[in-house]
Amino acid sequence: MASLSAWPLGGIPEVRAGDDLAQLIFTALDGRALHDGQVVAIAHTAVSKAEGAVVALADVVAGERAHELAAQTLTDGGVPERDPRVVQVVLDETVELLRSERGVLICRTRHGFVCANAGVDASNASGDGGSETLVLLPRDPDASARRIRARLRELSGASDEDRGPGGEDRSAPAVLITDSFGRAWRHGQLDVAIGLAGMQPLDDWRGRTDASGLQLRATWLAIADAAAAAADLARAKDSREPAVVIEGLARFVTAEDGPGAAALLRPLQEDMFR
Amino acid sequence: MASLSAWPLGGIPEVRAGDDLAQLIFTALDGRALHDGQVVAIAHTAVSKAEGAVVALADVVAGERAHELAAQTLTDGGVPERDPRVVQVVLDETVELLRSERGVLICRTRHGFVCANAGVDASNASGDGGSETLVLLPRDPDASARRIRARLRELSGASDEDRGPGGEDRSAPAVLITDSFGRAWRHGQLDVAIGLAGMQPLDDWRGRTDASGLQLRATWLAIADAAAAAADLARAKDSREPAVVIEGLARFVTAEDGPGAAALLRPLQEDMFR
Repeated sequence: MASLSAWPLGGIPEVRAGDDLAQLIFTALDGRALHDGQVVAIAHTAVSKAEGAVVALADVVAGERAHELAAQTLTDGGVPERDPRVVQVVLDETVELLRSERGVLICRTRHGFVCANAGVDASNASGDGGSETLVLLPRDPDASARRIRARLRELSGASDEDRGPGGEDRSAPAVLITDSFGRAWRHGQLDVAIGLAGMQPLDDWRGRTDASGLQLRATWLAIADAAAAAADLARAKDSREPAVVIEGLARFVTAEDGPGAAALLRPLQEDMFR
Repeated sequence: MASLSAWPLGGIPEVRAGDDLAQLIFTALDGRALHDGQVVAIAHTAVSKAEGAVVALADVVAGERAHELAAQTLTDGGVPERDPRVVQVVLDETVELLRSERGVLICRTRHGFVCANAGVDASNASGDGGSETLVLLPRDPDASARRIRARLRELSGASDEDRGPGGEDRSAPAVLITDSFGRAWRHGQLDVAIGLAGMQPLDDWRGRTDASGLQLRATWLAIADAAAAAADLARAKDSREPAVVIEGLARFVTAEDGPGAAALLRPLQEDMFR
C-alpha cells in the first residue's frame, strides 16, 4: 500500500544572499534524520535569495519597451499601474514574450519555463532597509537542486558505506525546487517542479498498449509536478516555511541526480495542449 | 504547522453499473471513521462505471468524420491505427475539437474540460466477456461528487447534532473526483479535479497588494487540483485503488457543497496561458 505524507520545516529564518540553505534546512530538521527515500521540496524564492538571484529596483533603468508595456495598464489617474523598472527586470529574464494583457506578462524564460512575469517575484523579505527587491528564478534550478542535495548529504555525514556498487550515493534525499505557475484552460496556480535532483521527473507507462489501439489512459505521469503541488498543500500559504519534507515517494527517488526538471519542458513543436 | 497525508483505500472491488460507490468506499474504510476535515478523492473511472457512463464498442457506428480522423494515422500496413468507433465515441463527448495529431484528439468536452480524447478511457474492467468497453467522464461530475458526499454522510450516520446553526451538515468529508490531464508547455499528465463537493476549489489571496504594484506572487491557488495530484501520488499506478483519503486540508473543507470543480474552468477569453 502506497501512501503519502508531507510536513513543513518550521524555524527557517529569512534567507539572505550567501546563506547556506542546506545548512538552514538541516538545522530546521532539529535532529530528525533525512533519508534517501525522502524528497525535500523548497520554494524557489529561498533558493534564489541564497544564491543572490535578486535585483534591487533602485539599480534598474527601464528601457523603451518596458515603458511601453507598463503604459498598457493605467490607473484611473492615468499613471502606469506597474513600475516600468519591474517590467524591465521581467523582460531581462524573458526570451519570448507570449502575451501581455491586463497587467500580466506571460513569458518564456531563459530556462524554457512558460509562466507569468518570467517567475519574477516581489521580495517578501523584511529588513531590506526600505529598498524594494525583486527575486528572480535561480539561474540554473537543476544545478541548484544538485548542489543542495550534495550539501545535505555532506551534512548528514554520509559515509562510504552509503555508496552503492557504482560509487553512487544512497543516503541523499531528492531535492525539488518549486514555483507557482498559472496554467492554460484552468483557473488558479499550481506549484510545479523547476529544479530537481535525485528523482524521476516523469513516470513512464507508455509502453503499455490498449485493447482499442488508442492511447487513452494516463501513461506518462508528471511525478515531480505532483510532488510540488502536494508540498504546497502541506504548508499554510503565509507560513514562511520554504521547505517541506515529503515521504512515500521512495519509488521515484534515484541514487543519481538524473535529468532534472528540465525534462518536464515540452518542446513547442510537440505541444498540442496550447 | 500544516501537514498533509493521504492513504489509499484497499479492497474496493471492480466497480460495475448500478454499484453504490459510496457504500463500497465506506466498506473499504473497515471501521475507520470518516470525518469532516477529510477529502475523499476518487478516480473518475470508478464513478463513471457506477453511473453506467460506459459505451460498448460493439454498439457504436462510426460516422464519416470519425473514419476521416482515424485514417490520419495508419500503421505500416496502411490500416488505421485507431478504431473509428473509438474516435466516434470521443467525438460524441466533444463540443470542440482543438487538435488532432499523432493519434491524439485534444477536445473541449461537454463539461468544458480540455483534455486528450475527451476523457474517454479504455476500460480496464476484467470479465467483460471479451467485449470492449469505453469509460466516459461522468455526465455531471460535480453532481456526482455531491451525491457521493451525501451518501457517505448518510452511511456514517450523521445525526442532527452534526448540523450547524444553519442546518448545514458538518460531518461529511469533501468528495473530489479526479482524472489525469495533459497540460500545455509541460510534459506528462497530472491528476486534476473534475468533480468536487464540500471543498474550496481555489484559495484566493488576490486582495493582497504588492509593493511594486505588479501582481507577481502566487495569489490564487488551485487547491482542488493540487489535492488531486497529491492523491494520485498516494497510490501505486497499477494498484486499482480508486479512492484515496486526504487529511490536512480541513481549512479548505466546507459545510456547503460549494461551486464544484466547474469553478476551475478558465473562460477562453481570459486565457493567456494557451
